Amino acid sequence: MVKKVLTVGEILVEIVATTRGDGFREAQPLIGPFPSGAPAIFIDQVGRLGTPAAIVSRVGDDDFGRVNLDRLRQDGVDVSGIEVASGEATGSAFVRYRADGSRAFVYNIVHSATGRLTLTPSAEALLDRCDHLHVMGTALSAPGLATVTQEAVKRIKSRGGTLSFDPNLRPEILGTPGLREALDDVLAQSDLFLPSGEEIFLFTETDDEAAAVQELLGRGLQQIVIKRGAQGASHFSGSGRLDTAPIRVDEIDPTGAGDCFAGAFVSFWLSGSSPETALRYANAAGAHAVTRLGPMEGAATRAELDALLPGPSS
Amino acid sequence: MVKKVLTVGEILVEIVATTRGDGFREAQPLIGPFPSGAPAIFIDQVGRLGTPAAIVSRVGDDDFGRVNLDRLRQDGVDVSGIEVASGEATGSAFVRYRADGSRAFVYNIVHSATGRLTLTPSAEALLDRCDHLHVMGTALSAPGLATVTQEAVKRIKSRGGTLSFDPNLRPEILGTPGLREALDDVLAQSDLFLPSGEEIFLFTETDDEAAAVQELLGRGLQQIVIKRGAQGASHFSGSGRLDTAPIRVDEIDPTGAGDCFAGAFVSFWLSGSSPETALRYANAAGAHAVTRLGPMEGAATRAELDALLPGPSS
Repeated sequence: MVKKVLTVGEILVEIVATTRGDGFREAQPLIGPFPSGAPAIFIDQVGRLGTPAAIVSRVGDDDFGRVNLDRLRQDGVDVSGIEVASGEATGSAFVRYRADGSRAFVYNIVHSATGRLTLTPSAEALLDRCDHLHVMGTALSAPGLATVTQEAVKRIKSRGGTLSFDPNLRPEILGTPGLREALDDVLAQSDLFLPSGEEIFLFTETDDEAAAVQELLGRGLQQIVIKRGAQGASHFSGSGRLDTAPIRVDEIDPTGAGDCFAGAFVSFWLSGSSPETALRYANAAGAHAVTRLGPMEGAATRAELDALLPGPSS
Repeated sequence: MVKKVLTVGEILVEIVATTRGDGFREAQPLIGPFPSGAPAIFIDQVGRLGTPAAIVSRVGDDDFGRVNLDRLRQDGVDVSGIEVASGEATGSAFVRYRADGSRAFVYNIVHSATGRLTLTPSAEALLDRCDHLHVMGTALSAPGLATVTQEAVKRIKSRGGTLSFDPNLRPEILGTPGLREALDDVLAQSDLFLPSGEEIFLFTETDDEAAAVQELLGRGLQQIVIKRGAQGASHFSGSGRLDTAPIRVDEIDPTGAGDCFAGAFVSFWLSGSSPETALRYANAAGAHAVTRLGPMEGAATRAELDALLPGPSS
């Protein structure tokens, strides 16, 4: 049976400054709105690979909501769990890259439509129909959203479904009351953990990577994939360690690469591919993502990923 | 004594699409953030003319709030009545001109910082210090904002201050419960009424302009100025009618022209200029405003207005 992937969390538009600099204190050239939101990027990548996919989220009844609904539908994502909130604004993130590659943001999320997510009947129906749940740490950072996410974890796990977890945490939200406990609880139920770089140390005592991996595998996690950005990625399980080298591409915009990586890994893993194959395609998906301006623009089809990977003879 | 002008209402940033078309269903070139919000544009024009000026409003603790605070301060506006709301987003309006000159918008106002305006102690101090209040219809369209505006009307009028009123109403908000009564109440206490074109008929039975003017003057309004955009403007009072011809300029962006017109008229009128002089400068301010991209960018200094007006010999 083909498995259906669900995620829960924010849908946003992203507006990108086309010059480098520190923030938005004066009028400047921009480009947007791009469909965005880490869970939305993840699920769009899942959909583009042809894997059944759905998202529980909330947008305003405006063009910024529609630009997301249009894209997700077009890429095959089931949007029945996205509530369209009349009189509210779709969330937004303005991003400008600084000269050093770091990013300055202006957000409208907490008080936007996506910040008021609740479990609608349509969303609830998805919890009873999906086989896998992908949780991002940000989906635990707001009370309403966390409640929906925790309910999704409970229902999908109790039906024998699987759970993947990407912390995807900005340091400034780690102090949110109750977040730590909620993260620990989700990690304890996860089958697959996908931290980026140092995020693996969020849940361990040690600051040595190999020891941290052993500690987490010892707690019952089946698989850990460490995303290393331009340095490739590593997969850990009871069978040992697999590494994949980075694919050289011209980086245009790194936003969304980790989400595309995770979307591809989950798709291939759920369809029965070996960890090695899933890791190679995920690595290619991350590389493809950075070649396009806009967070969701670089989500790739299977053919686009094959084009980035060495052929069978190599 | 030099009179100080107060207004109450929304502060926003505006993001402008640089191509024409219908809305924001795909990523496109934009420019912004421009400081904006009709009351903010009005008061910025008052400040640029050197007239003491203040605004009661609310922004988020983000670059979009700062871009407004910076500009208003720079143009001499007292910003002590602007609350900076931590954890909230500054309001925004995306605007795209359609081929026919009409505009498509995406707003974030109601649930933004400016939509939650309350009367802070700093704002209250301004109500006891200012001599004139300028009210826009939109400042009566949300419950919290309307309460603050009505309190400002009461306090300033009871201290012998004057009141100007610009309906500035988008048709879609006219159905807001209680708005009609609030508008009637403000009009009844106004000294100066500044409708744009057909807005004069919002408050009269007749649909004949001359009859509408007579009806309103008969109700106790001292002065009415009808803004006619590219067709100039007319002033009505017990002394009769004055007209001013439009000034020919290259129109780049009409947004904010009516607010600059009103800001200049109020400034000159309060400083003791004749209605004829105030009308000429207001007309020039409206013309100057449309020559710049961005709603507040065209607010003019006295010297810039003089440069647009015929010299004393003509």
